[in-house]
Amino acid sequence: MAPVQDARHGEGSPPITNNGSNEEQLHKKYRVTIIGSGNWGSVAAKLIACNTIKLPAFHDEVRMWVYEETLPTGQKLTEAINRSNENVKYLPGIKLGKNVIADPDLEHAVRDANMLVFVTPHQFVEGICKRLVGKIRGDAEAISLIKGMEVKMEGPCMISTLITEMLGINCCVLMGANIANEIAVEKFSEATVGYRENSEVVQRWVRLFSTHYFIVSPVQDVEGVELCGTLKNVVAIAAGLVDGMDMGNNTKAAIMRIGLREMRTFSKLMFSSVKDSTFFESCGVADLITTCLGGRNRKVAEAYARSGGKRSFDELEAELLQGQKLQGVSTAKEVYEVLSHRGWEELFPLFTTVHEISIGRLPPCAIVEYSEHKPNFSLVEGSAQYY
Amino acid sequence: MAPVQDARHGEGSPPITNNGSNEEQLHKKYRVTIIGSGNWGSVAAKLIACNTIKLPAFHDEVRMWVYEETLPTGQKLTEAINRSNENVKYLPGIKLGKNVIADPDLEHAVRDANMLVFVTPHQFVEGICKRLVGKIRGDAEAISLIKGMEVKMEGPCMISTLITEMLGINCCVLMGANIANEIAVEKFSEATVGYRENSEVVQRWVRLFSTHYFIVSPVQDVEGVELCGTLKNVVAIAAGLVDGMDMGNNTKAAIMRIGLREMRTFSKLMFSSVKDSTFFESCGVADLITTCLGGRNRKVAEAYARSGGKRSFDELEAELLQGQKLQGVSTAKEVYEVLSHRGWEELFPLFTTVHEISIGRLPPCAIVEYSEHKPNFSLVEGSAQYY
Repeated sequence: MAPVQDARHGEGSPPITNNGSNEEQLHKKYRVTIIGSGNWGSVAAKLIACNTIKLPAFHDEVRMWVYEETLPTGQKLTEAINRSNENVKYLPGIKLGKNVIADPDLEHAVRDANMLVFVTPHQFVEGICKRLVGKIRGDAEAISLIKGMEVKMEGPCMISTLITEMLGINCCVLMGANIANEIAVEKFSEATVGYRENSEVVQRWVRLFSTHYFIVSPVQDVEGVELCGTLKNVVAIAAGLVDGMDMGNNTKAAIMRIGLREMRTFSKLMFSSVKDSTFFESCGVADLITTCLGGRNRKVAEAYARSGGKRSFDELEAELLQGQKLQGVSTAKEVYEVLSHRGWEELFPLFTTVHEISIGRLPPCAIVEYSEHKPNFSLVEGSAQYY
Repeated sequence: MAPVQDARHGEGSPPITNNGSNEEQLHKKYRVTIIGSGNWGSVAAKLIACNTIKLPAFHDEVRMWVYEETLPTGQKLTEAINRSNENVKYLPGIKLGKNVIADPDLEHAVRDANMLVFVTPHQFVEGICKRLVGKIRGDAEAISLIKGMEVKMEGPCMISTLITEMLGINCCVLMGANIANEIAVEKFSEATVGYRENSEVVQRWVRLFSTHYFIVSPVQDVEGVELCGTLKNVVAIAAGLVDGMDMGNNTKAAIMRIGLREMRTFSKLMFSSVKDSTFFESCGVADLITTCLGGRNRKVAEAYARSGGKRSFDELEAELLQGQKLQGVSTAKEVYEVLSHRGWEELFPLFTTVHEISIGRLPPCAIVEYSEHKPNFSLVEGSAQYY
């Protein structure tokens, strides 16, 4: 094989000149573009950039599409990133790798890439995909790192599915116990990649993200992996309520276990392809633990219980999260709509109770009071296997 | 049916006069004896006594065999319990129920019982069973609440099996996230009963222990349930090391997940009957969480890591636990002997590393450093299913 030209252009970051004209060369190495540049997106860039520079299968250069902002200094964010190799706004103090090139032009950023990493706030995905239609390579593969898909009454609306449907490309997901700032300083962590069929593609994603401190495992279960990332936030609300009532580790562990069971049962009722084993992966039990030990959902729920339910979640969110959003409460509401639409409330006492507490219909202590009503799965036809 | 005489004798606690002479009467109601009266045994007595007095299937009276001690006041422990209805030494401040009768005579205590609850320190079980041979009813059933079975080189030595083999009776197990003092004050908790075959018997045990704050679920997997109760202590050592190095919630969650995976794999390699689903029960993931958040194994391991491995586990145990014993280190050693005997060390990097750290062969930071060597289960014939 002919040697492949190194595409790294150094700090000056001129635009890619190849322009897709030399298809053969482009095919030889995979080109990665990251769509998004927040806290987690920047950490993903760091992980990826350290691999593309080492592994011959990938072009060294990693494009990162950045929603352009003007910093208080007057400088553009992309210019600051490309000059300092740091995302000075969303991940200050961490070098991303000199082969990460911030690009404010979405279409330009994706043009030559055949590996697209989606890591934006979930409400922007649809708009971004609209802009990308017809602008991406025919052989592109995608992966979504976006937690927080919506659950609509007719069922969950997976972000991986949205990307696949809008762009006509395969989309894996990467989820797990991934606190961005801890991974940024190279603390040991794990993640799970969910894929649909092509095991060669998933191995490529695993290689792209894996480092000695970031261990990535593939699981053939996109829906299971992606649902874990959303549903755990509802359980974190329950765990926070237990903390706020000082009920101790025993009760908290019981609530987390019941929550994991409901995550599993709900996911399996929504998608029969979901596997039990997925919930033993980083995206399942580990992400649940991380989220219920720290995390903003837990924090706000704890404060809610300490106030005796007198202050609203909205008020506490504004006070405690400095503009960050609380996902657990809205996910609980969405899940509740699915459950009540199908008459399944009694099968999911924890999910249902979290919603009813969050809207003030039940007091915080109700979180441990549904327990005498054990879910009866014979109500759901053919559901014995789910429980 | 003829009315059955209430066997409750009130506070004076005269010996049972029935003497087994009226077999028919005895058969009508189940009689419970608790063998052991420590912290957890006393809480078990409270749970059981509140049920036997309510449920017509059980004799009200619950005998509790107490290893007799003389209190500093000069009073006998059994007398103090029967007078005050409290185990003044091991669970002060908690009323056990007036139908709990402390009995210092082991043979007398079990004579009329057909439900035997074993809840002693594990090193005493063998001696107690020897004394019970030929002294128990032919229709007796047993349940073991004893955590801390030994793992011998040829495999785990289950306490339930020991009881069954020595006494010729069926033995279930009850395990779970059960911090005795939290359950004593009626904080919400869960437990798992493992049983072998007879679902009628297990339902009786479930009814005997269940209260509105203590939710008990049956699982047909004695070995899986019992192994969880022991192996989690090894994982708690690992979690404590992570705490002692201030590695954050993300790393801790990853280590707990890997630990749960090794618990599952080890159990399934030891007993092919062990079920994956058992690890989603209270005895599995919930007990693991409780033990890794609080618990003495975690605590001593944290101190060990903070000392940089300079102080020994023995020294820290003596200093921090006031005479209580650390089980995780000895269990790690026992598990390591099984692994090295079979050449399985690489399949269980966490278990192996915990042992090597605890004997000073590796530094505390090694707990996150085996990660690049992913276990290769193809080494164990037919083991793909285990992983």
